[in-house]
Amino acid sequence: MKELAVVLASGGMDSCVCAATAHQNYDLAMLHVQYGQRTQAREFRAFNEICDHFQARHRMVTNLDHLAKIGGSSLTDTHMDVTEPDLESTSIPSSYVPFRNAHLLAIAASWAEVIGATRIFFGAVEEDGSGYPDCRSSFVEAFNALIEQGTRPETHIRIETPLITLSKEAIVKRGLELAAPLHLTWSCYQGLEKACGHCDSCALRLRGFHRAGTQDPILYEDDQQRHHYT
Amino acid sequence: MKELAVVLASGGMDSCVCAATAHQNYDLAMLHVQYGQRTQAREFRAFNEICDHFQARHRMVTNLDHLAKIGGSSLTDTHMDVTEPDLESTSIPSSYVPFRNAHLLAIAASWAEVIGATRIFFGAVEEDGSGYPDCRSSFVEAFNALIEQGTRPETHIRIETPLITLSKEAIVKRGLELAAPLHLTWSCYQGLEKACGHCDSCALRLRGFHRAGTQDPILYEDDQQRHHYT
Repeated sequence: MKELAVVLASGGMDSCVCAATAHQNYDLAMLHVQYGQRTQAREFRAFNEICDHFQARHRMVTNLDHLAKIGGSSLTDTHMDVTEPDLESTSIPSSYVPFRNAHLLAIAASWAEVIGATRIFFGAVEEDGSGYPDCRSSFVEAFNALIEQGTRPETHIRIETPLITLSKEAIVKRGLELAAPLHLTWSCYQGLEKACGHCDSCALRLRGFHRAGTQDPILYEDDQQRHHYT
Repeated sequence: MKELAVVLASGGMDSCVCAATAHQNYDLAMLHVQYGQRTQAREFRAFNEICDHFQARHRMVTNLDHLAKIGGSSLTDTHMDVTEPDLESTSIPSSYVPFRNAHLLAIAASWAEVIGATRIFFGAVEEDGSGYPDCRSSFVEAFNALIEQGTRPETHIRIETPLITLSKEAIVKRGLELAAPLHLTWSCYQGLEKACGHCDSCALRLRGFHRAGTQDPILYEDDQQRHHYT
């Protein structure tokens, strides 16, 4: 039997490509975390379909409602507007949940220790302009140090971030090389049936497919959006 | 107005003394986290009474049900027995929740960033024999490095651990000096009306009061337990 890797899987494209990378060498323990985001039902469906595709050995769905309680972000606070995309901006977007990835990695690390997984695959991307402080390599290295300090002496778990230096274009290409099921993924912050094509996440995704010279296999509300971001 | 400090408050004695320490220089934002532990209703009552005592400016109660889902610990897994106390042991007790304090500190850090608190008071104790890897100074320092990496550039939050090198005896004495409301606290892992006097947590607490030369003000099921641990 292969060693186990925990994969943090939102249901989006990046974590799907991350799962495909892990799947080359590990059996998968897929972890999905809901935190009151607007599109969580749609993301949950994508997560399950991706788990089925990879025949995951374990799957766990957990809830971090306190992130919605803490607020301070347009992803969870329905009183804040989702900002229009500005792909050149270097400031922190309003969709930032303070310190969010620390929560996700803490769950992954606890679970990994219990089930005996030796790796955590985490699809963070340092993409120019995204500006999330908890998506950088230095944050991940700090978390690896924390795991080493905060778990049993015999436990050795490392976080792998195979996408962290990649552009969305390169992620699309990697996904195609690995035959990752991109048609099952969901990235949109706003839509439920079809992707909106307008939010930050759709804009980055569409530009990635465009630059990779291929077409996004998912459906958009306005099919012209496919060609809008270049 | 004083600066704000987030205090992680379980309702137990250590976090109460920690709150009393913070209260000397800060207004308090009290944070209580439930994770399916057997005694959570009783701890919640203690938390609220301690908040009232310190006239906390903010209070937040959150839930980490996934720690119960992850299991691997007698605190949350009702199929595991609570071990009898062995105060000289250096191995990790069965009440260990893997990497638990990373979850608590992540919530505290996210909340601190949103409300503008500059300190997190955390009542961890490196007590001989407790053996929890995520209660050590090195773990807390690793978490401080993580906060610095994972939050906004203008955010500066530090975790303070005023009790970390203290014995239970010294914590009792510190609590008495600061007039901390020890009579409102709850430490027992098993009881609900009165403390059991038998579990690890009761044993450490009772020994602390005994060595400090004073009597624990809370009620025990068997009053003789007060004198059992020396």
